[in-house]
Amino acid sequence: MNKNVFHKLSYGVYVVSTWDNGRPTGCTANSAMQITSSPATIAVSINHDNYTNKCIKETGRFAISILAEDTPALIIGTFGFRSGKDSDKFSEVKYSVEDNMPVVTDSCGYIACEVIDSMETATHTVFLGEVKGAELFGDREAMTYSYYHKVIKGKSPKNAPTYLPEAE
Amino acid sequence: MNKNVFHKLSYGVYVVSTWDNGRPTGCTANSAMQITSSPATIAVSINHDNYTNKCIKETGRFAISILAEDTPALIIGTFGFRSGKDSDKFSEVKYSVEDNMPVVTDSCGYIACEVIDSMETATHTVFLGEVKGAELFGDREAMTYSYYHKVIKGKSPKNAPTYLPEAE
Repeated sequence: MNKNVFHKLSYGVYVVSTWDNGRPTGCTANSAMQITSSPATIAVSINHDNYTNKCIKETGRFAISILAEDTPALIIGTFGFRSGKDSDKFSEVKYSVEDNMPVVTDSCGYIACEVIDSMETATHTVFLGEVKGAELFGDREAMTYSYYHKVIKGKSPKNAPTYLPEAE
Repeated sequence: MNKNVFHKLSYGVYVVSTWDNGRPTGCTANSAMQITSSPATIAVSINHDNYTNKCIKETGRFAISILAEDTPALIIGTFGFRSGKDSDKFSEVKYSVEDNMPVVTDSCGYIACEVIDSMETATHTVFLGEVKGAELFGDREAMTYSYYHKVIKGKSPKNAPTYLPEAE
């Protein structure tokens, strides 16, 4: 098996957010995709070790903020390299509450979901969310995972499904 | 809900393939993502109406061929706009059998999987596959869904989860 093949899969860069007893929290993710169009549903994959995973299970809701090419890299660092258990990530970025969910406003837009199903794997939960609200914040170019790696030279947080230490 | 937000999600372009009683068959898809890295698993979303869906359920196996920017658009047409029930899609493209699965050789590479779980939705099945083999075919730039739309000006097959007639 040549693990470099996994680098040829294409992704965006997202902040997956939810509530932690009334406090907004979230983490970065690249594994998000639309599953059905009617009703609209999306799936996201979140590591068991991410505090956000526990919070999504408790609230049954999540949102994704779709990061833009010109979204400050600081936001990726804030949401990707620390745990929401110990830090108030949303205190450091501009956010608003849309469709009852906290979302990053310095982004392309958001999709707010209610969890309608989930699938457990060895290390990640795949949450299936029915879309309850979605809006664009202007017309910005979405950041791809490839752009993030090539241009911003980011590194994957260890909990990302695409984290490959040997490939860095 | 502003459905244009869904256009900001980033995807690749893939041929998802399997066997139909010894005959290779498959369909195009953009909804594929890695879920876990150890063991390596990927998820793909396939419409119930795609003949490939039924065949994956019968064989318990699938592969994805990761299309490249310079993969001929003809291949997308062959796999995307017709049913594998009525036509031998693989008779029209170069393919090889890798890790016991039929894969498109005019691509970045392939990932061959065994289905270990699945999740049903209103219109699609999300298959979770444990990776049994993966290889690159040279070093080619992966085709993104955005590139496909902007450069190749393709249209989504009706069964794609991202098919949005109002957006064309």
